[in-house]
Amino acid sequence: MLKTGLCETLGIQVPIIQAPMAGGVTTPELVSEVCKAGALGSFGFAYTQPETMQRDAELVRERTKAPFNLNLFASKALGAIEDAEQRSAIDAVAPYFEELGLKRPQPIRAPFAPDINAQLAAIESIRPAVFTFHLGEIEGTRLAHLRAQGIRIGGSATCVAEAKHLEALGADFIVAQGTEAGGHRGTYMRDPYEAMTGTLALVRLIVRAVRIPVVAAGGIMDGAGIAAALALGAEAAQLGTAFVTCRESGAPLVHKAAILGAADDDTLITEKFSGKPARGIANRYMREMRDAPTLPFPAQNTLTGPLRAAAAKAGSSDFPSLWSGQAAALARELPAAELVATLRDETLAALTRLSALRG
Amino acid sequence: MLKTGLCETLGIQVPIIQAPMAGGVTTPELVSEVCKAGALGSFGFAYTQPETMQRDAELVRERTKAPFNLNLFASKALGAIEDAEQRSAIDAVAPYFEELGLKRPQPIRAPFAPDINAQLAAIESIRPAVFTFHLGEIEGTRLAHLRAQGIRIGGSATCVAEAKHLEALGADFIVAQGTEAGGHRGTYMRDPYEAMTGTLALVRLIVRAVRIPVVAAGGIMDGAGIAAALALGAEAAQLGTAFVTCRESGAPLVHKAAILGAADDDTLITEKFSGKPARGIANRYMREMRDAPTLPFPAQNTLTGPLRAAAAKAGSSDFPSLWSGQAAALARELPAAELVATLRDETLAALTRLSALRG
Repeated sequence: MLKTGLCETLGIQVPIIQAPMAGGVTTPELVSEVCKAGALGSFGFAYTQPETMQRDAELVRERTKAPFNLNLFASKALGAIEDAEQRSAIDAVAPYFEELGLKRPQPIRAPFAPDINAQLAAIESIRPAVFTFHLGEIEGTRLAHLRAQGIRIGGSATCVAEAKHLEALGADFIVAQGTEAGGHRGTYMRDPYEAMTGTLALVRLIVRAVRIPVVAAGGIMDGAGIAAALALGAEAAQLGTAFVTCRESGAPLVHKAAILGAADDDTLITEKFSGKPARGIANRYMREMRDAPTLPFPAQNTLTGPLRAAAAKAGSSDFPSLWSGQAAALARELPAAELVATLRDETLAALTRLSALRG
Repeated sequence: MLKTGLCETLGIQVPIIQAPMAGGVTTPELVSEVCKAGALGSFGFAYTQPETMQRDAELVRERTKAPFNLNLFASKALGAIEDAEQRSAIDAVAPYFEELGLKRPQPIRAPFAPDINAQLAAIESIRPAVFTFHLGEIEGTRLAHLRAQGIRIGGSATCVAEAKHLEALGADFIVAQGTEAGGHRGTYMRDPYEAMTGTLALVRLIVRAVRIPVVAAGGIMDGAGIAAALALGAEAAQLGTAFVTCRESGAPLVHKAAILGAADDDTLITEKFSGKPARGIANRYMREMRDAPTLPFPAQNTLTGPLRAAAAKAGSSDFPSLWSGQAAALARELPAAELVATLRDETLAALTRLSALRG
């Protein structure tokens, strides 16, 4: 029941992928509980060093033999940052640091992020069932090497052109990231603000444009949403926000509370937290920083890290990045395995309801 | 087959509404062919005087007894415009007028739009099966009066708050307009740029928030999209862009060609044509006018009218408003009745495909 071709390819029991979310949300507990329940658990390893990647993957393997997914950001490496740019960006956030009693931030120095080659070497060594990447491309020869080791590969697309390019590079499947999606926009070939296509339209456009399977991502929070994704021709649905509020998720309590408290779509896109556009629940930082200067990605993420962490720890929603998709109002507070089972049951119920319309 | 509760209420055979589109797209030929095929044809009468409303409705009734829908804009009336504001807005577009050999536009004087009370009186006199409104609200007592005459009433919402408000006013159904939708954003309670929720998320949010039926609008171009809308709990799908390219549509050829030529989502939101944000295929006017001053709605629409018409007549896509949803790349050039029949068949095929997943 509910098994699509992609479920067979990835070795999962239900067409549900727990989205990779960076910054500590995807704990080994969350990933392993999702996998044990028959969906695909994913680590968001964008900012994670190889040793931690290895350790977290081992922790999952101690709990289950089920397949899991490791995800990296494939954005272009950042070059040097001018001193004047550092000063402007620091001046913009310094009053908030002071407000929380933190010392004034120092200029951000290279390396700005974990070395992607070392991270890819860790992927090869871990050999997960699935590897996905976001925010860019990885060269075809490298992907071919990973595929030769039996790793299935998926890439994120926010427009038809990106999906076709990923197919040509040799991806096994495409994650079609609609504008509803929380967190970072995966756009890498266009102006991200001109690639804000809704999930319903985007999934259908990409399904019609490529021959490989498509995963729908963005705004999906329940079985009706998963059934809609399947109706559009997607072979799985990827849900992020729905899993942020799980007991096993590592998201700060203020983040969980903001999602659970949503009654409408109160999200906006901002690049002020990390340097790249990402969707989150609008808060004081996003609104006040609207026109403020920032460092390029991922240096801005490093710069704002202490502010976000200190605010979250103090229980303030003013400064943390409250990444969320547009349907946060449908979020539930459930253990991950129970959420997966509920999503499966709801999807089947939606299909049964639709079946009655066939007369 | 395919009949939902709302189909019964509205007296239609398939859960498909041809979206009301103002500015001459919805000809009596288009509306009557859609209605004869069992879907709900709609006139976009936002800028239409009562006499023309009467005449167009009669032309449909000469061809079919099937129900149809009349739609108005319910935006707040526009007050006086300062001379300086007129000059800035005229200066911004004057070079384009000159380029096309048109004389410099004159200040736009009241009345800026047909009188909404006269239009509502025409609705009462015509007594269509369905009346819908966009871009605002109509007072509850007025709606009660129309409902007492047997007219079913629908209002547009772009967020949960608007949907709940329309339900409280006494609407029979809500049109949930996702960000994918072409043409004017119906937002009336929020900043429209903060109410850009994707169709998949918005429909699900609104279905869960109100008790009356919901119609999904935005990015739906084929039966898979309609099946997705039904999966989300919508009781009908409203399609605009899919009908713009029909033989019977009154859209200029450059508009039809721009939609039929799309290969990706190349739309953007602009308020530079009418004074209110609306989605269309990005063209020279939209890009060059990005930061230019405009008159408030609908005076800007009057101001740009001659430019849009002259360009369309000359076969130029530089200046017309090329309203389109985000899935234009899926458009087809079919007679309206054939499009409705195709959409019905595709929807049934999608439901059959989904049924196989129930195991």
